[in-house]
Amino acid sequence: MTYKEQILKKIKNNQEIVGIIGLGYVGLPLAVNFAEAGIHVIGFEKSQKKSDLINEGTNYIGDIRDAVLREVVVDKLTLEATTDFSRMKECDALIIAVPTPLDKFRKPDMSFIESACINIGQNMKSGTFVSLESTTYPTTTEDFMLPIIERESQLKQGKDFWLAYSPERVDPGNKQFHTRNTPKVLGAMSEDGVEIGEALYLKAIDYIHKVSSPRVSEMVKILENTYRLINISLINELALLAGKMDINIWEVIEAAKTKPFGFQAFYPGPGIGGHCIPLDPFYLEHIAKKYDFDLSMIHAAGHINMRMPHYMYIKIATALNKHQKPINGSKVLFLGVAYKPDINDERESPALEIMDITAYKSGVVSYHDPHIPEVTTNEGHKFVSEDLTIEALTQVDCVVLATNHKAFDIEYIKQHAKLIVDLRNMVEEQNENTFKL
Amino acid sequence: MTYKEQILKKIKNNQEIVGIIGLGYVGLPLAVNFAEAGIHVIGFEKSQKKSDLINEGTNYIGDIRDAVLREVVVDKLTLEATTDFSRMKECDALIIAVPTPLDKFRKPDMSFIESACINIGQNMKSGTFVSLESTTYPTTTEDFMLPIIERESQLKQGKDFWLAYSPERVDPGNKQFHTRNTPKVLGAMSEDGVEIGEALYLKAIDYIHKVSSPRVSEMVKILENTYRLINISLINELALLAGKMDINIWEVIEAAKTKPFGFQAFYPGPGIGGHCIPLDPFYLEHIAKKYDFDLSMIHAAGHINMRMPHYMYIKIATALNKHQKPINGSKVLFLGVAYKPDINDERESPALEIMDITAYKSGVVSYHDPHIPEVTTNEGHKFVSEDLTIEALTQVDCVVLATNHKAFDIEYIKQHAKLIVDLRNMVEEQNENTFKL
Repeated sequence: MTYKEQILKKIKNNQEIVGIIGLGYVGLPLAVNFAEAGIHVIGFEKSQKKSDLINEGTNYIGDIRDAVLREVVVDKLTLEATTDFSRMKECDALIIAVPTPLDKFRKPDMSFIESACINIGQNMKSGTFVSLESTTYPTTTEDFMLPIIERESQLKQGKDFWLAYSPERVDPGNKQFHTRNTPKVLGAMSEDGVEIGEALYLKAIDYIHKVSSPRVSEMVKILENTYRLINISLINELALLAGKMDINIWEVIEAAKTKPFGFQAFYPGPGIGGHCIPLDPFYLEHIAKKYDFDLSMIHAAGHINMRMPHYMYIKIATALNKHQKPINGSKVLFLGVAYKPDINDERESPALEIMDITAYKSGVVSYHDPHIPEVTTNEGHKFVSEDLTIEALTQVDCVVLATNHKAFDIEYIKQHAKLIVDLRNMVEEQNENTFKL
Repeated sequence: MTYKEQILKKIKNNQEIVGIIGLGYVGLPLAVNFAEAGIHVIGFEKSQKKSDLINEGTNYIGDIRDAVLREVVVDKLTLEATTDFSRMKECDALIIAVPTPLDKFRKPDMSFIESACINIGQNMKSGTFVSLESTTYPTTTEDFMLPIIERESQLKQGKDFWLAYSPERVDPGNKQFHTRNTPKVLGAMSEDGVEIGEALYLKAIDYIHKVSSPRVSEMVKILENTYRLINISLINELALLAGKMDINIWEVIEAAKTKPFGFQAFYPGPGIGGHCIPLDPFYLEHIAKKYDFDLSMIHAAGHINMRMPHYMYIKIATALNKHQKPINGSKVLFLGVAYKPDINDERESPALEIMDITAYKSGVVSYHDPHIPEVTTNEGHKFVSEDLTIEALTQVDCVVLATNHKAFDIEYIKQHAKLIVDLRNMVEEQNENTFKL
């Protein structure tokens, strides 16, 4: 039997062992989906703590139900985690779901992918299917990953192993679309890779959309998130202008939404947060330079979003000024630091940056977030979430509505806060005590 | 009875007379809708020719069925056209649907609106409802129109007449959404104006979405079209980069469309045409300057789109070069000059600009468009549509697919053309004789 016949037979008989590298918000839901289908999954984690949590059946990801994780780990015994990367040789498929952050100069930090590829190259057996899920710039799979894996393994892609790119589309907190029912795009370096990848992924995901190459699927993910970046940036820019023109941008968006074709609503906010939208487009900008190409839309969008937290600080300062108070010495309570509602993730959250600017200007900063008990800002300031008591609201000079968590009782906040700066359209009316983005 | 009671009573009894100023692709469908509802409509047209055509029941707008126009003009006698603007005094409502072009320096040309306002001010009777439908910059109704009408009429808005802004959302060629079933946004300068406007418009349109001011409704229209401009610009920019990276952008878009949330597909093309998308955002850019505001997203988008026809010319030159031919002296046949498929409108069409550039570089230009028998390019060159014969296809050095009209038989074109440059994803495969955007 050829390697291809072997792996397809195993997949057919549910006998394949799937290794998933990185058990974060992408890797863990995928691992659980495979494990629920009765497939033996080994999760590879650098963090001993996360690995131990999984192995005792303790969930740490919002989109996974605790009972489901416990079931696959404790009852079905189909999911286990390990920090021992040499166990990759047990796997028939290796799926990489590691972070791809930008460094402080907005350059892609490829070290996690590189490290995963070295581990794979040194440990995998012949006949393994390898797929990257992390967002990255087009050509990464072919030009960055392939040479590392072939060098470390001394194996040949297309013959001894298959290399594919299949971007994650996880939307944390989305109740309608989760890993299984979100169609998945798959591009591989050879036709066999696509065939094997589809057979494998169909265990965990309902629909696989095949494309002609890894670079096409890499571009798909970037397009999806760049679309969001530029539209959020546009509406942020228009919101700033609308504010100057005495136009309520929220009312404009609601009205525009009545157009039954050719429009999708985006909403302004204090900036763009999370792990995807603020980062992914800059991956493309990075690789574009190699092609002597300037991406002016992404550039302009980045420009706006970098400045949004500063504009939001100005909104706070202006509101306090109307109450004849300077920022210096004023108490400012931020409600919500998560980057979007009803999740416990403050990565890249603009609220943290506004807190830093406010503190830097000698404002007395505090916060409350029902989902995030403590945070460290970009500048390294540590805060613990205050209780949202009447006293907490009345004693501060300004309350900033920074994240629209459902848990917030707006009537209660309005009743007790002296001054509200609403960055999320949570309060309907504007008046001398309420200022809206 | 107050003026308000009078007009509401007339509307209730279907006795109001509606004047529509400008019988183009916006005004005429609206006029026909009112007339179909049995309301007496007077269409005001500067062009004697258009006025005569209407009065003899001859249709000149693609989205109106000829029989329907004939019915309201000849049988029901509810629609008439005139060039006599003094007849505005017969009307209870005056709806303005005149062009709002940009001049050669991309500044709004307000002369059509100004002229309409002067005519209205000099002719309307007390108790008239006045509404602008033309796209324009926010504050136009309040700051530009109101002073002219009040000065010319010596009447007071809110007391003697009402002024509103209600943007048209006509999408020429759209079979699903036309004037009646496309919700209409309405903002007026006083609450009475909104009440009267809604009662009136409901005769011709199924749903009216009311907003708090004309400037909000002005911004709605700009937002809708700016959204389209920046997304088309983004995908055009990504298409150019994808071309350099050996990525098929059309395949990328098809795959991205499988994302079931948070994505709307836009397609690249040779540039942006028509009467809205290329113009409307620059209205906003114009007024933003008054507020010392720089709209960087619109600016970047404008930048890309101004250059697209030039890039498309380069695509043609590069394709010919692969066939060892210079542009100079080569015969280039453009298929389609309309700005979008299956319509007979070449306004702002990028095809015309690419034809001009090609001719300027001494290419021998011709075109065929089943919907447009003759055109004059921006540079003043006049062309007559060639017949799409085998000879026409075989004798030219390059065929440029510039508009994706359904009428084009792609197999026939592929069979006979030596070289195809496909700007609209009409041909599937790329090879040495077929180059795609």
